[in-house]
Amino acid sequence: MADTRPAAVINGPNDNTMLKVCILGATGYTGLELVRLLSDHPQVEIKALTSEKQAGKNFPEVFPGFQGICDLKLQPLQSTKLAKEANFIFSCLPHKESMAIVPAFLEKGCRVVDLSADFRLHSSKTYGEWYEPHKAPELLKEAVYGLPEVHREAIKKTSLVGNPGCYPTASLLALLPLIQGRLVSPDGIVCDAKSGISGAGRSPALESLFCEVNDSVTAYKLTTHRHTPEIEQELSKAVGREVKITFTPHLIPMDRGLLVTAYAHALRKVETKDLIQLFKNHYKKEPFVVIYPEGTIPSTKSVRGTNFCHIGLAFNERTNQIIVVSAIDNLVKGASGQAVQNMNLMCGFPEKTGLEKSPLQP
Amino acid sequence: MADTRPAAVINGPNDNTMLKVCILGATGYTGLELVRLLSDHPQVEIKALTSEKQAGKNFPEVFPGFQGICDLKLQPLQSTKLAKEANFIFSCLPHKESMAIVPAFLEKGCRVVDLSADFRLHSSKTYGEWYEPHKAPELLKEAVYGLPEVHREAIKKTSLVGNPGCYPTASLLALLPLIQGRLVSPDGIVCDAKSGISGAGRSPALESLFCEVNDSVTAYKLTTHRHTPEIEQELSKAVGREVKITFTPHLIPMDRGLLVTAYAHALRKVETKDLIQLFKNHYKKEPFVVIYPEGTIPSTKSVRGTNFCHIGLAFNERTNQIIVVSAIDNLVKGASGQAVQNMNLMCGFPEKTGLEKSPLQP
Amino acid sequence: MADTRPAAVINGPNDNTMLKVCILGATGYTGLELVRLLSDHPQVEIKALTSEKQAGKNFPEVFPGFQGICDLKLQPLQSTKLAKEANFIFSCLPHKESMAIVPAFLEKGCRVVDLSADFRLHSSKTYGEWYEPHKAPELLKEAVYGLPEVHREAIKKTSLVGNPGCYPTASLLALLPLIQGRLVSPDGIVCDAKSGISGAGRSPALESLFCEVNDSVTAYKLTTHRHTPEIEQELSKAVGREVKITFTPHLIPMDRGLLVTAYAHALRKVETKDLIQLFKNHYKKEPFVVIYPEGTIPSTKSVRGTNFCHIGLAFNERTNQIIVVSAIDNLVKGASGQAVQNMNLMCGFPEKTGLEKSPLQP
Amino acid sequence: MADTRPAAVINGPNDNTMLKVCILGATGYTGLELVRLLSDHPQVEIKALTSEKQAGKNFPEVFPGFQGICDLKLQPLQSTKLAKEANFIFSCLPHKESMAIVPAFLEKGCRVVDLSADFRLHSSKTYGEWYEPHKAPELLKEAVYGLPEVHREAIKKTSLVGNPGCYPTASLLALLPLIQGRLVSPDGIVCDAKSGISGAGRSPALESLFCEVNDSVTAYKLTTHRHTPEIEQELSKAVGREVKITFTPHLIPMDRGLLVTAYAHALRKVETKDLIQLFKNHYKKEPFVVIYPEGTIPSTKSVRGTNFCHIGLAFNERTNQIIVVSAIDNLVKGASGQAVQNMNLMCGFPEKTGLEKSPLQP
Repeated sequence: MADTRPAAVINGPNDNTMLKVCILGATGYTGLELVRLLSDHPQVEIKALTSEKQAGKNFPEVFPGFQGICDLKLQPLQSTKLAKEANFIFSCLPHKESMAIVPAFLEKGCRVVDLSADFRLHSSKTYGEWYEPHKAPELLKEAVYGLPEVHREAIKKTSLVGNPGCYPTASLLALLPLIQGRLVSPDGIVCDAKSGISGAGRSPALESLFCEVNDSVTAYKLTTHRHTPEIEQELSKAVGREVKITFTPHLIPMDRGLLVTAYAHALRKVETKDLIQLFKNHYKKEPFVVIYPEGTIPSTKSVRGTNFCHIGLAFNERTNQIIVVSAIDNLVKGASGQAVQNMNLMCGFPEKTGLEKSPLQP
Repeated sequence: MADTRPAAVINGPNDNTMLKVCILGATGYTGLELVRLLSDHPQVEIKALTSEKQAGKNFPEVFPGFQGICDLKLQPLQSTKLAKEANFIFSCLPHKESMAIVPAFLEKGCRVVDLSADFRLHSSKTYGEWYEPHKAPELLKEAVYGLPEVHREAIKKTSLVGNPGCYPTASLLALLPLIQGRLVSPDGIVCDAKSGISGAGRSPALESLFCEVNDSVTAYKLTTHRHTPEIEQELSKAVGREVKITFTPHLIPMDRGLLVTAYAHALRKVETKDLIQLFKNHYKKEPFVVIYPEGTIPSTKSVRGTNFCHIGLAFNERTNQIIVVSAIDNLVKGASGQAVQNMNLMCGFPEKTGLEKSPLQP
Repeated sequence: MADTRPAAVINGPNDNTMLKVCILGATGYTGLELVRLLSDHPQVEIKALTSEKQAGKNFPEVFPGFQGICDLKLQPLQSTKLAKEANFIFSCLPHKESMAIVPAFLEKGCRVVDLSADFRLHSSKTYGEWYEPHKAPELLKEAVYGLPEVHREAIKKTSLVGNPGCYPTASLLALLPLIQGRLVSPDGIVCDAKSGISGAGRSPALESLFCEVNDSVTAYKLTTHRHTPEIEQELSKAVGREVKITFTPHLIPMDRGLLVTAYAHALRKVETKDLIQLFKNHYKKEPFVVIYPEGTIPSTKSVRGTNFCHIGLAFNERTNQIIVVSAIDNLVKGASGQAVQNMNLMCGFPEKTGLEKSPLQP
Repeated sequence: MADTRPAAVINGPNDNTMLKVCILGATGYTGLELVRLLSDHPQVEIKALTSEKQAGKNFPEVFPGFQGICDLKLQPLQSTKLAKEANFIFSCLPHKESMAIVPAFLEKGCRVVDLSADFRLHSSKTYGEWYEPHKAPELLKEAVYGLPEVHREAIKKTSLVGNPGCYPTASLLALLPLIQGRLVSPDGIVCDAKSGISGAGRSPALESLFCEVNDSVTAYKLTTHRHTPEIEQELSKAVGREVKITFTPHLIPMDRGLLVTAYAHALRKVETKDLIQLFKNHYKKEPFVVIYPEGTIPSTKSVRGTNFCHIGLAFNERTNQIIVVSAIDNLVKGASGQAVQNMNLMCGFPEKTGLEKSPLQP
């Protein structure tokens, strides 16, 4: 594929137009994935990586595959120092830790994409119910929910993006055309979601050991998963009244990949081909959403390593239910890839820059 | 664990009380699993194994792990010869092939458990709609649907059991207490099912190659999977009117294991602990159904290699939906183990004989 | 398969002839596997399970699949109390912890199979070089190396068995017939070993996380793995002089299974079929060793869940090297199954009791 | 990372300087991987893809993840037509088929990288012994063995490259510095190799089914694998006399990745750190070879999706053996990536073009 980028884009690493980026929490899976994506981004220079536990080591000492690709030294998180080295911050810290430090970077003039849950919900009350009291509630009004397919224009103008959760990304892309098109009842919606184990993070935990999850499948956090209010916030906004859904996550023995099978009651008879057309129209300008032809259904392997969301559809005329299957890579469109997409929008780069990757298949 | 079987049970292989068993299609995964289970069954002698492709080989030439455990020679399917060697037949043939040969065995006085779909549906019309014209429709009235938790008494008296599909087994055990207890609406039920790859059989097929399914998850046959009418048949019978459900199967990168996450609208408010009590009461005499305490959810690994069905429950008070998660081993309770359970019932053996196995975990 | 056990064997759980067993460290993978095997053993009653971290919980709270199979409460390790409840001890504690407590049980008249490394080496000097100073060196002379294929008679008479490591078990069964038959040079032997992840234990550790090991293979501890001196001890004894080998372990993304590919220089030309015959003769009375026909090679899946060791052979006439491939289940013949086999020998039970299991395949 | 390519490189797809490429056998795993790599290559335009079975379909109908990335229609293999559309051919056909068609492309002026075994061996006699009579023996002298680390200059000048096998690539990069440095005896070398399942290709075959290989490891083709003469050819050339090795391949339950553990007898005492320095010197100008520091060992996951070969080393002073562990992605450096590297050399492009990819980890 030829390079069709504008000449201005192609610059050397010392060029002043390069965006100087820092990743907080760079040795977790989303941090690692940001390094993978950004080290290949023509307008970004990674300037700093933080890790409390691994501070002092070079990044390739932790991830030998990155030797020659990203040789930075990991450093502890010191916002004053980092805000001098970088002007764009990705926070891959856990929720709670993120909201404690993000304000400091904003005050120092940095723009921030936060990959934790801390700036996704607009209501500090809801945040308090599902998480804990919010430490920076005033920022919740300012923060934009970083789903470009819905909030692209607002993302372009903000300094703080709350990067969506992996489950909400796949769920919302599956449901929004139906909800906005008034094809389905907002009540009784079910999102049955299946995620790879990388979604559980890189901290040593019994439940994430190979022998605990391999050759097995399970559901977890029935009715209580914290991504639920995030999905509901966006659906409610889209339909103009409060929506509540049933959301059930499952753990699948795979590294990455996330599949949502969404079920909604059709308000009227439709045909599958019309559903497909509706989705194609809805997403026709979207660079990262692909709608499948009738009778075909996405697998997560087709999007592995990419920022794409693939969607397949069927109308069950026997039960009047619409079934939407959406597949993403939980670490890319479900986390770090979407974060880069948001960065591109915030910085005026072409939205696909650094994200035009073919799937790693098999 | 001490042996508490009655003295009469413990006999040598030449004893006349031993049941003489033949397995048709013994080199597929359900046939192989029957050999595993029956070679350990104290009242059964495996007398014949058939395979068209591998006829002439000894079983351990195909499965070396069975050397010294089952050394029989595989033979082609000749019903006259086989009916002399055995008086109990397990058919692991594909549907269509099974209904072509099962009548011959019944006529010769054999009892039959058929693991294909050919004798599960009572209506030849329904069979015709989902499969093809039935070749032995008169047997459909005679055949008993082999779910012991529902049809135990009928199973004891019949000569022909249609062994339930893997998905229906897990789905029905999850839903029947709700449906029979009139706790949920029979409309709008969703069964979202996840199966290991062994469910696809042992025939070489592109879609079952390791590199096609590993590290990936997908849905398939949206709205059209042939296990749907089987679930609907039993739910309809339980509730006394026609029930239609939405059933979506998924493929999980694991050898065995099947998890159903079932969703139903509660007709009234309940509490999760009452749901659990209802299920405990419903299944209190069942040797192979385990109900989980509140807040815990089964994984398929806990039932790997066993005939158990583990069930976890939650009521979503925010949406009034009841969620039931049921886990089985698709090759045991979902196929060959249930077939042995049916054989035990048909032959008057204690129901658990040969099936009291601990899970292979990890 | 009919039950051919002598009548005396078949007793109720209250019978005085039942062996009363305690498992120290019952919530690790080898402890769990012992529960699986022993709960099915007709002459054993599990009386006590210990776990420091989980003390107070019932075993099925940790492993729900064992509900109704083993419902004992986990207790802290108190040797005085436990020695009253049980007279046979399996120690699944880590090395160092084991040698600190085993003497107490022996003094109280218990027999012990220790699954750690603490009683495998006869030389406290060697133990000190590879591990640390030994705390009970006087017991090293008394302890028998629990490889029944070599030390059966000594095992029958001892009160303390050092249960072999998983790698040494597969390596020694592969090499001993060659070494003892003087077919190969004792110098230059290579054991290239591949193990499932359960060999790393059930403690939360970064290196055992699903996403770290899935879809990957690696070697570890080149030239320094602590199973090396154990293999060398037994080879040296067999050949009558000091033998040193090169041993390299690898981690394979699978739950269980261990394959050793051993390479040795032939002292004279042989033919593969003669090698096979040699091995068949060597192991002709062994209940758990299977030699493969020429041209076939074992896979670990064929022994999954069983106590078997499968061996395939080839002579490379182009290089004069003999290649032996041996496959075991690292948790069964490589740990808990062999421990039960040793218990059977120590207690005068038929050696195969409780171990006649078919492989779980797939 | 900024784009530092020369301005001339960055051209539109209609530019005459773009290399016009055709991939024969584009729906196998190596063909698919070539599409992944080349669709991202700034100087290549993929003009034609062939597939006999899928001819007429668009590539994304077979691989939906490539929608918008490569939308070409698959066509049957017609050399006259294809030689007009493209001037550079990658053949991913099976051996035997490749040598039947490659001469026609060469005659028409195309340059060819052949990924089959047909042009790797220089001796038609050796080819005949391990494969079958060669159909184009005159080309064997002309063809260059495409291991750039050894034959870079010859590759630059040839029209026909025999792209190395996956096993030989990893084995030779591990062994050549030792052999050429005269550190080891050329006799008694062992290459114990572990490959992901994609190495077995994408044809439906029982042995490649998920349930046959998952959670298992096995060796295959002891002493007879056809990659053996290829390794021997290059080692012999390096040492100046005939070398024979023992090579044993194993199948690992993973998609991609290949690890070789090579063993050789040291001719004199060395220290591991000196070995490492030797390798660092040997490969100091190589863009795709990384030598690990002492005490660290590569895993295949660190090179997943990349063209890198990672090498770790140890000297076993107890046995005088040198152990080299080399890790590659069998589909990249072991096949399609190396093919692109060869294309880059043949066409005068910077060698790393299109191959500077971060690993997909996890």
